[in-house]
Amino acid sequence: MTDAPGRAARAGYADRVAERAAEQAVPEGPEGAYRAGALDLLGLLAYGALTAFDRLAEDARMAPTLPDKVQLATMAARQVAHFERVRSRLGEFGVDVMTAMRPFHEAFNAFHDYTRPKDWLEGLVKAYVGDGIAADFYREVAAFVDADTRALVHEVLADSGHADFVVDNVRAAIENDPKVAGRLALWGRRLVGEALSQAQRVAADRDALTSLLTGTVDRPGLDLAAISRMFSRLIENHTRRMSALGLQA
Amino acid sequence: MTDAPGRAARAGYADRVAERAAEQAVPEGPEGAYRAGALDLLGLLAYGALTAFDRLAEDARMAPTLPDKVQLATMAARQVAHFERVRSRLGEFGVDVMTAMRPFHEAFNAFHDYTRPKDWLEGLVKAYVGDGIAADFYREVAAFVDADTRALVHEVLADSGHADFVVDNVRAAIENDPKVAGRLALWGRRLVGEALSQAQRVAADRDALTSLLTGTVDRPGLDLAAISRMFSRLIENHTRRMSALGLQA
Repeated sequence: MTDAPGRAARAGYADRVAERAAEQAVPEGPEGAYRAGALDLLGLLAYGALTAFDRLAEDARMAPTLPDKVQLATMAARQVAHFERVRSRLGEFGVDVMTAMRPFHEAFNAFHDYTRPKDWLEGLVKAYVGDGIAADFYREVAAFVDADTRALVHEVLADSGHADFVVDNVRAAIENDPKVAGRLALWGRRLVGEALSQAQRVAADRDALTSLLTGTVDRPGLDLAAISRMFSRLIENHTRRMSALGLQA
Repeated sequence: MTDAPGRAARAGYADRVAERAAEQAVPEGPEGAYRAGALDLLGLLAYGALTAFDRLAEDARMAPTLPDKVQLATMAARQVAHFERVRSRLGEFGVDVMTAMRPFHEAFNAFHDYTRPKDWLEGLVKAYVGDGIAADFYREVAAFVDADTRALVHEVLADSGHADFVVDNVRAAIENDPKVAGRLALWGRRLVGEALSQAQRVAADRDALTSLLTGTVDRPGLDLAAISRMFSRLIENHTRRMSALGLQA
């Protein structure tokens, strides 16, 4: 893509973003498109936290021991705390969290429907690998929103030692039965495939979010090379997580 | 029961409590029996919170709307926060929460197995009526423990407006379809029956807890008349909750 058609496409984006922004009662002005993108990011985070709660609570039920159950219950409760933080930030923007989440129901529900863990280990890998790549993506997008929203996103996504719990458990399970590694490696690849395919659906559907990354006529964004570097970073981090688990990406 | 055999029975309690206290590594001395009772109360609260989390998270999945789901997820997360508070109080006593909860697995698991809500409304009634009577009982027992533990128990059990959510929803459902009231009233009676039957199992098994209420040779407790008044209070409060829901107790 040369710069000229890129700009034209982005101008198209900007028009549609402005329409969407008006629909969502986002104040007019040069900030409109940016705000719509930030609201989309917060809506994604909120619905992501809510569905993660649901899934972690279900995983807790598969826990082999009571301390494991406590660990998963704690991770689930933390998602509700994240949801509450994001909801109150949306409130500061004058936007209802239910409205902000609506555009993302389908993608998240499809992702979770297609990736139901069959057992405790698959649940752990999903919590670590799936949430990991999602969190990395949110952080990339957050680079383009205002400082307060960015700080909130980073805070909500900060790891709180749960990664160690997952890594220790999965590595122990593989040590105990090396055959497990092949199955979980396949599972990890499926998780990323589904995550990317749902992310694509969201990107195609939510111009405001996409234009945070790609820029608009009024505001520079990433060029194609930068977007490709972003994807490289996401995949690199994913590979690092898989090998932390003792799995091939 | 006259006072003499009562005292003899309580002396028997005290001996066994002292044994249990020693098993649980509770410091020796006149405080031993009391401490064992306080630890039992905290163990009950911790396991109660953990199973309540599990149940509320399952109920959240039956929520008819997304705001309802958020409400139940918030209630579930709150139980994890309670669990964490109780765990850290147990830590101050030098006791592991897993050890303190162990004696209560069977009673709670049986209670929840026998009272699985068939739908959203039964789940709401259980959250309000079942947790309500349990909370009242914990508060009664807490009258006999140290001030710090008592304050923690009251704080953990404080209502946070969730009761209003349940009451509003159940009353609206009955208004919409008055036939629902009969089924839910039966359900409420079953919940109390199962709760009392499991409470009896715990009382028979955990002398340290029972002796908080009945006293020991060293420490006066409630006499039979006072225990009967306590049960009257529990039933009165239960009846009040049922009628708040628009249901006959």
